[in-house]
Amino acid sequence: MSPEAVLPDALWVNGRPAAQVSALDRGLHYGDGLFETMACLNGRPRFLGLHLNRLADGCARLGLPPPDTAALEGQVRAIAQGPGRAIVKLIVTRGRALARGYGLSGQEEPTHVLLRYPWAGEDAAAAAQGVRVRIGTLKLGENPALAGLKHLNRLEQVLARAECSDPQLAEALLFSSSGALVCGTMSNVFLVHGGQLATPRLDRCGVAGVMRAVVGGLAPGCGIHFQERRLEGKDLEAAEEIFLTNALTGIRPVRELSGRTLAAGPVTRRLQQALAPHLAGGGEAADA
Amino acid sequence: MSPEAVLPDALWVNGRPAAQVSALDRGLHYGDGLFETMACLNGRPRFLGLHLNRLADGCARLGLPPPDTAALEGQVRAIAQGPGRAIVKLIVTRGRALARGYGLSGQEEPTHVLLRYPWAGEDAAAAAQGVRVRIGTLKLGENPALAGLKHLNRLEQVLARAECSDPQLAEALLFSSSGALVCGTMSNVFLVHGGQLATPRLDRCGVAGVMRAVVGGLAPGCGIHFQERRLEGKDLEAAEEIFLTNALTGIRPVRELSGRTLAAGPVTRRLQQALAPHLAGGGEAADA
Repeated sequence: MSPEAVLPDALWVNGRPAAQVSALDRGLHYGDGLFETMACLNGRPRFLGLHLNRLADGCARLGLPPPDTAALEGQVRAIAQGPGRAIVKLIVTRGRALARGYGLSGQEEPTHVLLRYPWAGEDAAAAAQGVRVRIGTLKLGENPALAGLKHLNRLEQVLARAECSDPQLAEALLFSSSGALVCGTMSNVFLVHGGQLATPRLDRCGVAGVMRAVVGGLAPGCGIHFQERRLEGKDLEAAEEIFLTNALTGIRPVRELSGRTLAAGPVTRRLQQALAPHLAGGGEAADA
Repeated sequence: MSPEAVLPDALWVNGRPAAQVSALDRGLHYGDGLFETMACLNGRPRFLGLHLNRLADGCARLGLPPPDTAALEGQVRAIAQGPGRAIVKLIVTRGRALARGYGLSGQEEPTHVLLRYPWAGEDAAAAAQGVRVRIGTLKLGENPALAGLKHLNRLEQVLARAECSDPQLAEALLFSSSGALVCGTMSNVFLVHGGQLATPRLDRCGVAGVMRAVVGGLAPGCGIHFQERRLEGKDLEAAEEIFLTNALTGIRPVRELSGRTLAAGPVTRRLQQALAPHLAGGGEAADA
């Protein structure tokens, strides 16, 4: 699963085209910041409101200044402009380190980095036929202070991803140090058992994905009982359907988990159907 | 404990004076790298060999290319040049992200950042009289894959440090999610009980400090029984002496822990005495 080299076709720092950030940035020194990755269709960033809300929540939890959401929205829309598909990544850090060490001088000013990458769009075959997944050996550390956040401390994901060298594998599912099922390296996971839908509660670790929130929000309207709760290995084994979500890929059924064959069942298909207009339409409807 | 604003007086990127790094750097995007912070006396980086060995070990564990230790040594010595005291921080990241996402293209080339800061030297009063410390409320996540490393995922330390707003407090001692005593936000901790010395085993989290290794190595020669082992709250309560270590500060006795008064006892004083020539002499002797 070595990805092809791909570089952004646009790169802005603090609202202006630029290729570099200060070598003093606390994002570099400590991973002291957050990010969002957004799918864009014909210049429209999908679920932009949800992404910026999550960013604002993350800033509050890390003690970063509240972002100027209107200004960021304008910048994201501006860099996303143009026909076709693109991925826009937004990084917000606490800014340049004005003191030595972890402490703050109180004068830090956040850094905003925007990157636009080319994007081929969702993989229709993966959505239809499903993907192969393994269970990762790395166990995620648990810290409620960071749980759910899309922060810049992502070494666990880097190491877990490095375990997936088999190009046939789309993802590794990860457990936490206490034995809870959490998520994939870059996706959230949903299980179906007895027709009911569940996804791991992310109160100790994991990233609370935007697509996870969208899909969870669609379930009741589809007549599907849905719960966030602690899930463990036995729940994964008992699951009749398993699927992954991610802001870029929508819903991907798991067709093989560490050698076990699964089928994309009725709950997965119903949710894919309900999600389809939001994926195609820029997600503005679910974005209110 | 808001630190005064202090900026580096020299800044190099990849061996040349430069103030910026690529906005694509995986250090910024994922905290995908390591760092070292070194005390320098009259142009001599203290314990340089130990710092570079730890860096090489960390690179091996994260799957980063082995650093060119001789070249790095030359760069650190070069930026450290000059009379008086300085702090040199070295950051090594996996380099520019040549692919989107956590995976590697295989073509990444590490980034080296060197920063030199002014330094007033060790705080003699803190070494003599001791420092005030509290117990932090944040619990460190446990991940053996990252334990001991001085990696760039330091949000836990940033958040724990932000708890220490009282300028009288020098440090916060941190426990892990399973209840083990681990370290301070920027120091290692040693306990003395019944004349014997112990420091937390760092097999689940924490940073294995260079000064921790130096002090542990001095103990047998001082006739002090020393062990790395799991320590918990009851060990902290039972300790007759507690001290902190850090590459810049040497040994600092704890004179108050969350309201409890302690004295710098004979074990602490004997180790400070044994350490003194290494602190003053550039640490070359202990550096073999």
